[in-house]
Amino acid sequence: MEFKKVVLLGGGVLGTQIALMSAYTGHDTTIWLRSEGSIGRTEPKIEYYTKAILQALEDAKKFVGNPLGAFVYPKALIRDWNNITVEGIDELIAQGEKNMKENLHLELDKEKALKDADIAIEAMAENTEEKIEFYKSIQDILDEKTILCTNSSTLLPSTFAEHTGRPEKYMALHFANSIWAHNTAECMGHEGTDPKVYEQVVAFAEDMNMVPIQLHKEQPSYVLNSLLVPLLDAGQNLWARGIADPETIDASWRIGTGAPVGPFQIMDVVGLKTVSNILNMKPDAKDPESVTYRLIEMIDEKIDKGELGVTSGKGFYDYSK
Amino acid sequence: MEFKKVVLLGGGVLGTQIALMSAYTGHDTTIWLRSEGSIGRTEPKIEYYTKAILQALEDAKKFVGNPLGAFVYPKALIRDWNNITVEGIDELIAQGEKNMKENLHLELDKEKALKDADIAIEAMAENTEEKIEFYKSIQDILDEKTILCTNSSTLLPSTFAEHTGRPEKYMALHFANSIWAHNTAECMGHEGTDPKVYEQVVAFAEDMNMVPIQLHKEQPSYVLNSLLVPLLDAGQNLWARGIADPETIDASWRIGTGAPVGPFQIMDVVGLKTVSNILNMKPDAKDPESVTYRLIEMIDEKIDKGELGVTSGKGFYDYSK
Repeated sequence: MEFKKVVLLGGGVLGTQIALMSAYTGHDTTIWLRSEGSIGRTEPKIEYYTKAILQALEDAKKFVGNPLGAFVYPKALIRDWNNITVEGIDELIAQGEKNMKENLHLELDKEKALKDADIAIEAMAENTEEKIEFYKSIQDILDEKTILCTNSSTLLPSTFAEHTGRPEKYMALHFANSIWAHNTAECMGHEGTDPKVYEQVVAFAEDMNMVPIQLHKEQPSYVLNSLLVPLLDAGQNLWARGIADPETIDASWRIGTGAPVGPFQIMDVVGLKTVSNILNMKPDAKDPESVTYRLIEMIDEKIDKGELGVTSGKGFYDYSK
Repeated sequence: MEFKKVVLLGGGVLGTQIALMSAYTGHDTTIWLRSEGSIGRTEPKIEYYTKAILQALEDAKKFVGNPLGAFVYPKALIRDWNNITVEGIDELIAQGEKNMKENLHLELDKEKALKDADIAIEAMAENTEEKIEFYKSIQDILDEKTILCTNSSTLLPSTFAEHTGRPEKYMALHFANSIWAHNTAECMGHEGTDPKVYEQVVAFAEDMNMVPIQLHKEQPSYVLNSLLVPLLDAGQNLWARGIADPETIDASWRIGTGAPVGPFQIMDVVGLKTVSNILNMKPDAKDPESVTYRLIEMIDEKIDKGELGVTSGKGFYDYSK
C-alpha cells in the first residue's frame, strides 16, 4: 500500500518540516492545529522553511559536477545527484514550490483533518500526560486503516501504545531537524507493532526521500543520540578536568576523524541551556566532588554571561564576527 | 630556539612517516635503527610513504579552486591552501621530493645519530620494559640540549620520566597515521616537564605543519582516542543488543553529524583483532551475562571467518568489490 494522505498532528518546527517534505514528495498533506492561534504560529514557519528548502536547492546548483558535491547536496530534495543538471534543479525548484503550496493544508477540525488518512504523525510537545490525553481523544476518529506514528525524540512508543486503541498500527517515526539535509527517519516499533505496519512505514519514509534508520527494538533516544551523547560526555570530561580546551578537543576530533565539527561545536548548536539541563539529570549532578558538578558550574557560568550557543551569537565559540 | 636536527629513534610505520614530514619541512633528519635488518625493513617504508606523500600532492591538484577542496587537501603538505595554484603544487612536489631525499639519513650508531640533536623522538614498540632499558642506554649519549619525546600511543610520559635522566626535557609528542593528511601532534608533558620545553615542542610541531593538540595534563590515550572509544563503545552496544545493524548505525551517524564515516567503518580501519583485544581488556569480558561478552563472541565469529577489516578485504563491510 502506498500512502497518499498524510496528516501531521502539530505544527511546531519539526511538524512543519515533516509536512513540507511530505508535500514536496507529492503526498496530500494536512497539518492539524489546535486553534486559530496555532495557525498564526505555524504559517510563518511554513513560509520560513519553504524558503529554506528552495534556497538549499538553489545553493546546490554551485556543486553540480563537483566531485565533492555528493557530500553536501540536500539529500532529501534531490534523489539522483549523480545525474543532476542545473536545469534539473530548476525543475525541482518549480515542482517543489508547486507541491509544497498545493499539497499542504491546515485544518482545525480533527475529524476533517484525519478523515481517510493513510498515516498520521503526532509531532506534539514531549509531555507524556498530554500525549496520552490526545491519543485517547482521536481513538474514535481515526479511520480503521490509519497508521499512527509519533515523532517523539525522548519517549518510547510502548508508553503510549495501549492508549492509542490501535497498538498494532502504532510506532515511532522520528525525523531530524533540517530534514531536507539530514534525511534520516528513525523507525522504531514497540513489541506489539505489526511487522507489516513497520514495513509500510519504512516504505513511506523512503517515499519521502528519507533514509530509514530501522531499529529492531525500542531504544531510548534512538541510534543517533545513543552515539552522540557518549561523544559529548567524553569531550565535556576532558574540558572539565582541565586536560584540554574546547578548541583543541574539537580540532583533534575534526582532523582525526574527518568530521566537519567537534563536540563543542555540536553543543553550541544544541544550545548550552539544553546541555546544562541534561547534565542536571545525571545522578552525580549534586555531588560537589564530581566532574559533572564542576561541568555544570562551568556551563552555567557561560549561560549567566548570555553565552548560549549559536543562537545567542556566542557559546564555546564567537559567532558574532 | 628553532630545531634544526631531528632524530627518530625507530623506523616503524609512524617513525618513518614522522621522519619524512620532518625532512619535507626542511629539518635535517636522522632515523636511528638497531641493525642492518632494521634498515632492510625501513627502506621500503621510506619509499612507500614518499610515494604516498607525492601522490597526495598530485591528487590535490584536482581540487585547486574547488570551494570544497579545503576539506580534503593534504593539510600537512600545503600550508596555504587558499592561495595555492597547480603550479604551486608542482613546486611543492619538486621541493618536497628533494627535501625527503636530501634531509633524511639512516644511522645504526646511536652516538652518531644523536650527536647535536635538537629533538629526539622515540617511536618504538609499546613495551614498557624495553623503553626503560632503551632510555637508560642513551642517557649518557644525549647532548645537554636535546629534548626527548615519546610517540607512545598508550603509555604515559610519567612512567618513563625518571629513567630518561632528563625529566624536565621529556614529554610525549604523538602523531597520527597518514601524518600528511591527519596532521595532529598531541603534546603532553608529565608534571616535571619544563613549560619552556613544552612550548618549544609545540613550536616544532607547527614547524612540521602539524596542528599541535595541547594537553595541559596527562591523559591516557590523549584527546582523540578519549573521544573515539566512547563512540565506538556506543555503536558496539547498539549492535550487540540487537537494536540496529552496523550499516544502519553508520548511516545514522553520517547523516546526523555530517561525518564521513560511522563507528563500524572506523572499526574496519582499526581492524577487528585490535577491537577484540581492547574488548577483552574490559572488566566484564568474561561475564557471560554482559554485553561485552556477547560482543566479543560476535566480533570473534567474524575474525574466525577471516573478516578482519579493510586489510583483509572484508570486515563489517565488503571491500573486495
